[in-house]
Amino acid sequence: MPPVVKDISTREKLLEIGAQAIAEKSFNSCGLAEILKRAGVPKGSFYHYFASKEDFGVALIEKDIQEYMELLRPILSDRRRSPLARLRAVFELSRDECKNHGAARRCLIPKLALETAQLSETVHAAVKCAYDQWSALLARVIREAQAAGEIGRTQDPDRLANVLVMLWEGATIRMQIDRSLQPVDDFLAFVFDSLLNERG
Amino acid sequence: MPPVVKDISTREKLLEIGAQAIAEKSFNSCGLAEILKRAGVPKGSFYHYFASKEDFGVALIEKDIQEYMELLRPILSDRRRSPLARLRAVFELSRDECKNHGAARRCLIPKLALETAQLSETVHAAVKCAYDQWSALLARVIREAQAAGEIGRTQDPDRLANVLVMLWEGATIRMQIDRSLQPVDDFLAFVFDSLLNERG
Repeated sequence: MPPVVKDISTREKLLEIGAQAIAEKSFNSCGLAEILKRAGVPKGSFYHYFASKEDFGVALIEKDIQEYMELLRPILSDRRRSPLARLRAVFELSRDECKNHGAARRCLIPKLALETAQLSETVHAAVKCAYDQWSALLARVIREAQAAGEIGRTQDPDRLANVLVMLWEGATIRMQIDRSLQPVDDFLAFVFDSLLNERG
Repeated sequence: MPPVVKDISTREKLLEIGAQAIAEKSFNSCGLAEILKRAGVPKGSFYHYFASKEDFGVALIEKDIQEYMELLRPILSDRRRSPLARLRAVFELSRDECKNHGAARRCLIPKLALETAQLSETVHAAVKCAYDQWSALLARVIREAQAAGEIGRTQDPDRLANVLVMLWEGATIRMQIDRSLQPVDDFLAFVFDSLLNERG
């Protein structure tokens, strides 16, 4: 069914080019015309896939979080590793993603979060949902690690998951400012050699 | 000297209106024409104070970090409080700032950081300098707290300061997403009741 294949590839192309363009500029300053020109896609075609630029923003966020979850799934289901080792592997993989793809590309969600908090309810809701998914996933591994006696039970797993997400977001922002992986390496050292280690 | 007073107030007005406009939109999408219109200032007047929009961005960042440092100074010099109590007071005041002025207004620097990392070298350098100033200030209080036996000496004070800054940035981003002070309250509880407490 070639038309379906074509459909999928045009939509994917728009999302890929859109993510790049927004990473370079911002969601608000990146005009639709520019994205269409870079993707070589006519305007009518865009509106076949997306109702509006906001709808496009939501699709970008959903794609980003889904790809990230896909990436984490094999790690999280690897029962040969302990829960704490899986948690560490999640963030080590995230570090490698930052290294391979550049910090800016991986920071699409916090960037949209800061930009759209005052602007668009639908994009805002998609960002919130992405963070909630990520926090819930980490809280689940933390609970497993607590049950296995790897992380102390004094910490509330949901709060600890939120702390890890907030610290990671701060680290990736700092990585862009410092143009260095050091803040993310500091995150790993702090969380796994100090924070979680001392609660074991 | 009325002309000087007028000079100062126009520059201040442009910075104040500019900060509001950028908090609502983004640095890149917020046109100079809009800022000038909102401030009721002619274009020629703008270029009397700022060489370019980038130069304006740098001035915004410098004003933001200077005002924050001014706010912290009386706390940090209050020798009636212990170093750890001063550190807590710094973040409690920052929390109150978020509460009183809204998260968006207080997140100007990370917002510009994410937006301009790929765009402007001069704005980027100003953002880096602002973070370095803040980290250095926190590291100094941490060293005092270590010397006073309030925080364990196993932690490197510079790394711990960076961790606090990264976690705070993540908390303020999350605060905007969740539209709640809860992430900042979680920051305070985690840092002062758990993280630093257990190292005392």
